[in-house]
Parts: sequence; structure tokens; C-alpha cells
Amino acid sequence: MSKGVGKQTICEFWGATNLDSVEVTERALRDAVRAGGATLVDVFVHRFAPQGISGIAVIAESHLAVHTWPELGYCAADFFTCGEHVDNDAIVEVLREAYQAQHVDVRHFARGVAPAVQPA
Amino acid sequence: MSKGVGKQTICEFWGATNLDSVEVTERALRDAVRAGGATLVDVFVHRFAPQGISGIAVIAESHLAVHTWPELGYCAADFFTCGEHVDNDAIVEVLREAYQAQHVDVRHFARGVAPAVQPA
Repeated sequence: MSKGVGKQTICEFWGATNLDSVEVTERALRDAVRAGGATLVDVFVHRFAPQGISGIAVIAESHLAVHTWPELGYCAADFFTCGEHVDNDAIVEVLREAYQAQHVDVRHFARGVAPAVQPA
Repeated sequence: MSKGVGKQTICEFWGATNLDSVEVTERALRDAVRAGGATLVDVFVHRFAPQGISGIAVIAESHLAVHTWPELGYCAADFFTCGEHVDNDAIVEVLREAYQAQHVDVRHFARGVAPAVQPA
């Protein structure tokens, strides 16, 4: 348990393109799940008016989510994965390429690290 | 832009119950969206075998996600919201109550803070 039950990765993609395409986002999510070695449960992509996409892949290992701001060239991605087998860096790379991001900021966090004092 | 386009909140709920109920999770997500002043787009809840739930609310302001481990009494929640009007603390409180969590760890992060050097 000291390693936690999962890891969360938060990415900021700047200088990005393809940010208003449902097709690009759905394909990117499916490709990222495959590249990361995760198991897809379902994918949902929603396009907002006048622009912007939210895409979520539910995976057996938790989720991938992307939210785009075409007017800023910005895409926020985050994914939460449990299990040692999932390659979060591979997921980042697929998304970076799909959106052709020129600047990427990535942060990783351990999730589900039990508190020192267990609840009664 | 210096404040970023949104805020992400990551919560660890321990000593929690109701972690294997699709109904509790769907209601918790809907109630949390309402309490936070966000706008619901859609809700998806998936129950894994032999246990565990993933629930995702797509909102106009991005997403809420919860993943439960009934065997650990643990629920991982994270939500990403854009717009000053969303009350992330209210969302935490609704989820905490729904799962009757005895120990809560909350972290907030600014998202979409533009890099100092803009991409060309």
C-alpha cells in the first residue's frame, strides 16, 4: 500500500492544434489507451458550442480525460491509472502527437497512499 | 491568464462506505454537480467485477470523476472545473457525505497557466 493504488498524470499542452475535432479526440483517446497498455471500457466525446471538446475514456484502470480550448491552443489532459502495467508516459506521447503540442508540462502524483493513521 | 483556465481538485477519501453502489455514485455525482453550481452534460457509471465503481460526470466546466475500492474503504475523486462560479469545496463535501468518509485529503491545482515563453 505504501506505493498507493494508482498514479495520476496531469498534462498541460500548449501551442496545440486539432483541438476542435471530435474525431481527433476520440481517435487520440483510443490510441492512447492502447499505447499505454490499458483496457478500454468506453469513450465519450462532447463538443461544446461555439468551440471546445471534452473527451473521456473510461478504462479498467480508471480514466483519461482531455479538455480543449482551441482559442488558446491549450489542451488539459489528466489520467488516473492503477496497476504497474500502464505506461503513462506512452499516453502522454500519443496525446502530444495527436494535438501537435509544442510545449508540454507533465506532473505525476501517487494516489491512494493510505494515511498514517487508519480510520477506526 | 495568470490565474489559469481552471482548477483541479484531487481528493482521497478513506474509511468510506457505499463504495460498490452504482446508485449512490450516480446520485452523489449529480448532487455534487448541483451543489458546486456546475452544469451537468452527462453522467456515466460503470461497475467492475468483482467490485469497484468508476463514475464520471461530464460538466460544461470539464469533469468530475470518482473511482472506488470497496475492499480498501477508499475512493479517489478528482474534478477539473473552469470558471470562477464553481465551488469545488462544495463538491468535496457532497462526495464526502455520500461515501461517509472518515479521512479526507484534498489538494488543489491551478490548470492552464500559460508558460512563461509562449510557443511560436
